[in-house]
Amino acid sequence: MLAFLRAAPYNSGMAQDFNQIKKKALALHKKSHGKFAITSKVPLRNRADLNLVYTPGVGAVSSYVAAHQKEAREYTMKGNSVAVVSDGSAVLGLGNIGPLGALPVMEGKCLLFKKFANIDAVPIVLAAQDTEEIIATVKAIAPAFGGINLEDISAPRCFEIEERLKQELDIPVMHDDQHGTAIIVLAGLLNALKVAEKNLSRAKIVISGAGAAGVAIAKLLKQAGAKNILLTDRQGIIVAGRKGLSGIKAELARMTNPARERGDLTNALRRADVFVGVSGPNIATDTMVRSMNERAIVFALANPIPEIMPDAAKRAGALMIATGRSDFPNQLNNSQVFPGVFRGALDHRVRAITDTMKLRAAGAIAALVPRPTPTSIVPDMFDRRLVPTVAAVIR
Amino acid sequence: MLAFLRAAPYNSGMAQDFNQIKKKALALHKKSHGKFAITSKVPLRNRADLNLVYTPGVGAVSSYVAAHQKEAREYTMKGNSVAVVSDGSAVLGLGNIGPLGALPVMEGKCLLFKKFANIDAVPIVLAAQDTEEIIATVKAIAPAFGGINLEDISAPRCFEIEERLKQELDIPVMHDDQHGTAIIVLAGLLNALKVAEKNLSRAKIVISGAGAAGVAIAKLLKQAGAKNILLTDRQGIIVAGRKGLSGIKAELARMTNPARERGDLTNALRRADVFVGVSGPNIATDTMVRSMNERAIVFALANPIPEIMPDAAKRAGALMIATGRSDFPNQLNNSQVFPGVFRGALDHRVRAITDTMKLRAAGAIAALVPRPTPTSIVPDMFDRRLVPTVAAVIR
Repeated sequence: MLAFLRAAPYNSGMAQDFNQIKKKALALHKKSHGKFAITSKVPLRNRADLNLVYTPGVGAVSSYVAAHQKEAREYTMKGNSVAVVSDGSAVLGLGNIGPLGALPVMEGKCLLFKKFANIDAVPIVLAAQDTEEIIATVKAIAPAFGGINLEDISAPRCFEIEERLKQELDIPVMHDDQHGTAIIVLAGLLNALKVAEKNLSRAKIVISGAGAAGVAIAKLLKQAGAKNILLTDRQGIIVAGRKGLSGIKAELARMTNPARERGDLTNALRRADVFVGVSGPNIATDTMVRSMNERAIVFALANPIPEIMPDAAKRAGALMIATGRSDFPNQLNNSQVFPGVFRGALDHRVRAITDTMKLRAAGAIAALVPRPTPTSIVPDMFDRRLVPTVAAVIR
Repeated sequence: MLAFLRAAPYNSGMAQDFNQIKKKALALHKKSHGKFAITSKVPLRNRADLNLVYTPGVGAVSSYVAAHQKEAREYTMKGNSVAVVSDGSAVLGLGNIGPLGALPVMEGKCLLFKKFANIDAVPIVLAAQDTEEIIATVKAIAPAFGGINLEDISAPRCFEIEERLKQELDIPVMHDDQHGTAIIVLAGLLNALKVAEKNLSRAKIVISGAGAAGVAIAKLLKQAGAKNILLTDRQGIIVAGRKGLSGIKAELARMTNPARERGDLTNALRRADVFVGVSGPNIATDTMVRSMNERAIVFALANPIPEIMPDAAKRAGALMIATGRSDFPNQLNNSQVFPGVFRGALDHRVRAITDTMKLRAAGAIAALVPRPTPTSIVPDMFDRRLVPTVAAVIR
């Protein structure tokens, strides 16, 4: 049996389901030779069509666009296109599997862009993992695109790459693992806190994982008014004065953990109100969840295997549980966010996705579920209101 | 009236037609916001589909492909995709109009790839015109693609860019303006010589234009057995010892013009059998064509305005005339070549397009017209035999 079909330390039935899905996914991809295809928006049946689509007619369009660059969005794909760019350094929970390994995910992502937001997205997987090379490459290929979606690029490089590209390009650039995730977590949390009758500014929120997602979640929750956030990484709680803190982690130490708590995840979760896991499979135990405050909120978002399985968290007393998966209630996944964000950015010709937009997007998603319950805190990915609602506030 | 809608120094009726085409092309592109769109090869209707196309199922595909890189073509778009790359430095006859100006042409090209060869091609227009930057960018984005089609990159940079990428990538790289053009010119010439009852090795062949196309045509005709080739550029006939010859032109001087003829295009065409124009509009006159040998062959391929209009060449005594346009008989256009070349390269997993393949492709195209006439030397672009015939010999 193939190595990647083993794994799945689930309770029996689930493991079988999951292995079934894996096998089916492999068979489907092999049969169709991938998923991404192109098509034409205009007819191309005969010579008369060809005269307009290609030479000589296209020459007039090229001359016009060259002379009126601002109108390129009207006459070319640029008005509706996004490049989905990855270097394959942090693909799903699979780690640094390189560009070819990343490609199936990026193709999938492009199909979601099309399905949910009618955006024509193109997978670009890079044979380069150097920060400067990635920046140079994305800048070089940017002209055909109305936006850049960075994907599955590992921390800390992802922060500089996104920041620099935002400064240097005049189209929106978003690292989805950061901001897509942060927006949906905030949306879910706003409604979860409502159900639990807790308050964002007073809640103790523990985020396990200080990679791309953890950092962005911490920053956005803080922007939204959270005051007591703790992050943990492999060395434990991030706290000012911890040995070897530098860069983004030093910054996190300054902006989080006001009580200067020390220790590991077990210590962190004691009397916590919210657990947000964006780290790895099975790192949280029943005991840890039991040590949380009453009406605990558990977002175990590691994919495909969460930090703690929903049934275990439930048994340990959590009021509500969300995961990143579509086979449990309360899926929190950046797929609920990125199609709408880029739809809005393209429609409103936004040059950058700001923090204000992110906060508004989270609020708008939460507002789609006016009476949240423990098993329903955010709209389903297939909810047709989702994309237009998010798109409307990205301006 | 817009500048690019003027021009067209044609005889009246034609100029009107051409302006109509330009207006229609602009209107069509504006209405549809460009031409390029993406689609899915697999169903994406519900959560069950999503589980296979995206997480969690796609993770199995990513792991598998990462561990079995040679099978990437089976499981991803790589098996059927081509990047159409341009820096916008030599777009049609429009010159250096930059990446946005090039984009309508590249989108059109991608549609031809799809229409004629069912290849999923992606337009990549570059905000970079430096040789090293272009090479680095193409190498960086190569993993998702099964081939690289370079397009509308000016000489002499195009030669080094193609050569280096061929050496450094393990997928086929072809600069279409060079080799697509050279292959269709050779195909047309083989049949034209048959009609004119002339012999390739003895014919005097004059090529006006020593850019990408002219250089590649000269080299391929030479490979095919032509012995008396002259090239002209803005300074006149390229001849050994001419002042300031360097690089590719010095090479051309060594391999062409055995009689060391000197002078301009007028001198060159005297007693020539074949004129191949890949230069610019209206540079050849009736008088020049009249000075050619009996049963002269005139390929006036500048686009959209040929070196001499077909009716004028005819009146001056040419036996047969070809252009690059679809509104005259004998269209010679790289669109008759590149879809089949890349279809073959993808199907047969060819790592590089060799000279032998190019010669075979030209021969195969010519053989599709077993009884050529002055108005029919190559198959129509819409001839369904064309792509499979070319593809079959690219191996």
